Amino acid sequence: MIFAQNRFFVLLLGLFGLFGVLSAHADTPSGNEAKIAHFTLENGMEVVVIPDHRAPIVTHMVWYKVGSADEPPGKSGIAHFFEHLMFKGTTNHQAGEFDRAISEIGGNNNAFTSYDYTAYFETVPADALETMMAFEADRMRNLVLDDEVITTERDVVLEERRSRIDNDPGALLNEEVNATLWQNQPYRIPVIGWMQEMEQLNRTDAQDFYDRYYTPNNAILVVAGDVDEKSVKEMAEKTYGKIARGPDLPPRKRPVEPEQNTRRSVTLRDARVSVPGFSVQWVVPSYNTAKPGEAEALDLLAEILGGGVRSRLYQELVVGKQIAVGTGASYSGTMLDDTSFTVYGAPVGQTPLDEVEKSVAAEIARIVDEGVSSDELEKAKKRFIRATIFARDRQSAMANIFGSTLATGGSVDDIAKWPEHISAVTPEQVKQVAARYLVPSRATIGYLLPQPESGN
Amino acid sequence: MIFAQNRFFVLLLGLFGLFGVLSAHADTPSGNEAKIAHFTLENGMEVVVIPDHRAPIVTHMVWYKVGSADEPPGKSGIAHFFEHLMFKGTTNHQAGEFDRAISEIGGNNNAFTSYDYTAYFETVPADALETMMAFEADRMRNLVLDDEVITTERDVVLEERRSRIDNDPGALLNEEVNATLWQNQPYRIPVIGWMQEMEQLNRTDAQDFYDRYYTPNNAILVVAGDVDEKSVKEMAEKTYGKIARGPDLPPRKRPVEPEQNTRRSVTLRDARVSVPGFSVQWVVPSYNTAKPGEAEALDLLAEILGGGVRSRLYQELVVGKQIAVGTGASYSGTMLDDTSFTVYGAPVGQTPLDEVEKSVAAEIARIVDEGVSSDELEKAKKRFIRATIFARDRQSAMANIFGSTLATGGSVDDIAKWPEHISAVTPEQVKQVAARYLVPSRATIGYLLPQPESGN
Repeated sequence: MIFAQNRFFVLLLGLFGLFGVLSAHADTPSGNEAKIAHFTLENGMEVVVIPDHRAPIVTHMVWYKVGSADEPPGKSGIAHFFEHLMFKGTTNHQAGEFDRAISEIGGNNNAFTSYDYTAYFETVPADALETMMAFEADRMRNLVLDDEVITTERDVVLEERRSRIDNDPGALLNEEVNATLWQNQPYRIPVIGWMQEMEQLNRTDAQDFYDRYYTPNNAILVVAGDVDEKSVKEMAEKTYGKIARGPDLPPRKRPVEPEQNTRRSVTLRDARVSVPGFSVQWVVPSYNTAKPGEAEALDLLAEILGGGVRSRLYQELVVGKQIAVGTGASYSGTMLDDTSFTVYGAPVGQTPLDEVEKSVAAEIARIVDEGVSSDELEKAKKRFIRATIFARDRQSAMANIFGSTLATGGSVDDIAKWPEHISAVTPEQVKQVAARYLVPSRATIGYLLPQPESGN
Repeated sequence: MIFAQNRFFVLLLGLFGLFGVLSAHADTPSGNEAKIAHFTLENGMEVVVIPDHRAPIVTHMVWYKVGSADEPPGKSGIAHFFEHLMFKGTTNHQAGEFDRAISEIGGNNNAFTSYDYTAYFETVPADALETMMAFEADRMRNLVLDDEVITTERDVVLEERRSRIDNDPGALLNEEVNATLWQNQPYRIPVIGWMQEMEQLNRTDAQDFYDRYYTPNNAILVVAGDVDEKSVKEMAEKTYGKIARGPDLPPRKRPVEPEQNTRRSVTLRDARVSVPGFSVQWVVPSYNTAKPGEAEALDLLAEILGGGVRSRLYQELVVGKQIAVGTGASYSGTMLDDTSFTVYGAPVGQTPLDEVEKSVAAEIARIVDEGVSSDELEKAKKRFIRATIFARDRQSAMANIFGSTLATGGSVDDIAKWPEHISAVTPEQVKQVAARYLVPSRATIGYLLPQPESGN
């Protein structure tokens, strides 16, 4: 029952299939993309089957096309709160039965909530797949939402907020940086919710949310592992297929960003901060909102500028000048609406933060002015595609790439064509997106600083 | 068809009856508060009658308890757009007929939209009151909203946005400062709306808005002038009284602010800026959300700190140090939800903006540390109450005080008791609200600066 947001969000998307943030999880490749099946049940539930016969294991995921950015005004946190409620009892099973059934067969399971989707997953022996489907289909519609369950679990998420956010200056800062970067788009609201609104979430809110969004026609089933299309289809029809189609939802059109005209900064001083740090963020298009090639260019810009130890920022600031303990860049491309591009840094010892910030800005300016070399770009593409192909070799990563892409407006074809789209990016395109989007006068900077001061 | 927001908003509320911002409009007092009548028609329409027989003139206002902060997500600007539409044709009158009827008898009329209310007013010879009521009652329910009217008027408000906001760096900055100060409350959204959302407003949006909010039970009639309660009641029953009660609206509970933990800044550099300036804002309670005495203390703090030429800021920075061309403080107390307290300054000639900012901060710190003297406070109360009593002598100001107060959760009794509540404020209370709310680490600062620079 984790929630995804901010840096944490990028990390989580990294673990769960965001292109370009997967390098850490490399493995030996295999070429099983070819046999992927994609179909829709009569009740509108989308199904993706990713066969992988190397081990008798299966990853079973259900993705709902609803996240925190779909919440009604004043009800922040309901998406993540509801994800917790999905682990409670149903009309057919006691709370905990599902979890026990999984652990008894040595499987594992969890769920996560993000801005654009909520996903539930189990990794179990292949022969337990139909049982997983039966349990998952059951809780899609038969959850028992009484006041006692609501009150108890609400205390759990409130405590989760206290420990995860309110006790962590970095997390508090991230929340207010997001609320400042996003002037209109709902990504401004924290996935876990604002405390004063979480406290008010009630049974009616949960029931309305459940009835509106937890329907087969708003869900995507992703099965990766030692299975074949035919058997998955049969099992899916026997379980999920029995659920009646829900009311059609309107298109997911949310408030979007106005033109931004200002440079903003958000500063948090806290006695608990030992190492100061900063982040600089910009609003940029996502794979779903970008013009052709722009998102791919932003992915490669992040890779060249700050994607790990080979990146310009790391080489210049950590290895070269030795002024930073950490620095990098990230781009969260797999989002339904416009997303953010982030660079960050933390000074070494007594180095002034300002010096690190200026050096990071200088590296960006260098790309805006001089662009990148084709050799550098080709190396970045290789690293990047290789990392993703490796990632695709991991069962859960594959399932997550398909789930997150389909839940944010992408298609199976987009995933298939992605490597060639990356290969097609030119140095000029990388320079262009840097110049168009990483504009200092429209940046939002977050400062995390030690020892409180008046500051005024 | 003016809209109220930002500094402009404060100014407008000044013109239209915000306590404490009225000093400019002083006049000789008269004591006609006693005869004020307040009653409700059978269909739920609230009525306030403020007799004033010095001239055969009457001010007729209808206040709707809906403003931009009540707009649905993604529909910013609909409240103000709708105010424009109210000047179009009805099933009984051609567009323009109402305006002509007023100008023919030498009257004047207009309307304004704010965050919490929308108001329509006419000032005419007293014998024209019933005609005004008939026209106003007619457009409350009989507007003709066809696509042609919508399309034409939408172009008008889009042009209004271009000229009022997009061509004015100060207005652009204010918008983004508000979107930064307010992390959750709808006051973050500009009253005129975000361009990309205004462009999409359509006939259905307008019709829904009209049917939901333009009903007698969501309106307040305020009549000030050469009239008596009995005749106003008779006329109101003959006109407004004929309109059927609308569906009851839920309580106006909107998203409120989370705890704020950061100091934020918003910087706009623009070649059109000749004199640089800054503002510092804090989230503070309004008369409607404050604990007893706090709003009154904030009003007096604004008066002492920056309310005109006798204030500390003006005396220290403009008269004394001669480093500022302008400086002051303001508090917008008449709001439904939490509101903002603002201090601002602009340097003289080549004086660094930073120096003015530090001096303003020092004056605030001085009140936080040393408080204010009882003599200073008593003088401020006198100026303040006197200004309001003078203002109350102005027919339209009286009408506006009652309309804006009743539309933001206040009562007729609150207005009557307001002078004694102000008199009761102690120096300690003023010091306390300054210390509690004007905290540097939770301030949002806006900088308007000349000649664009990289800034990064």
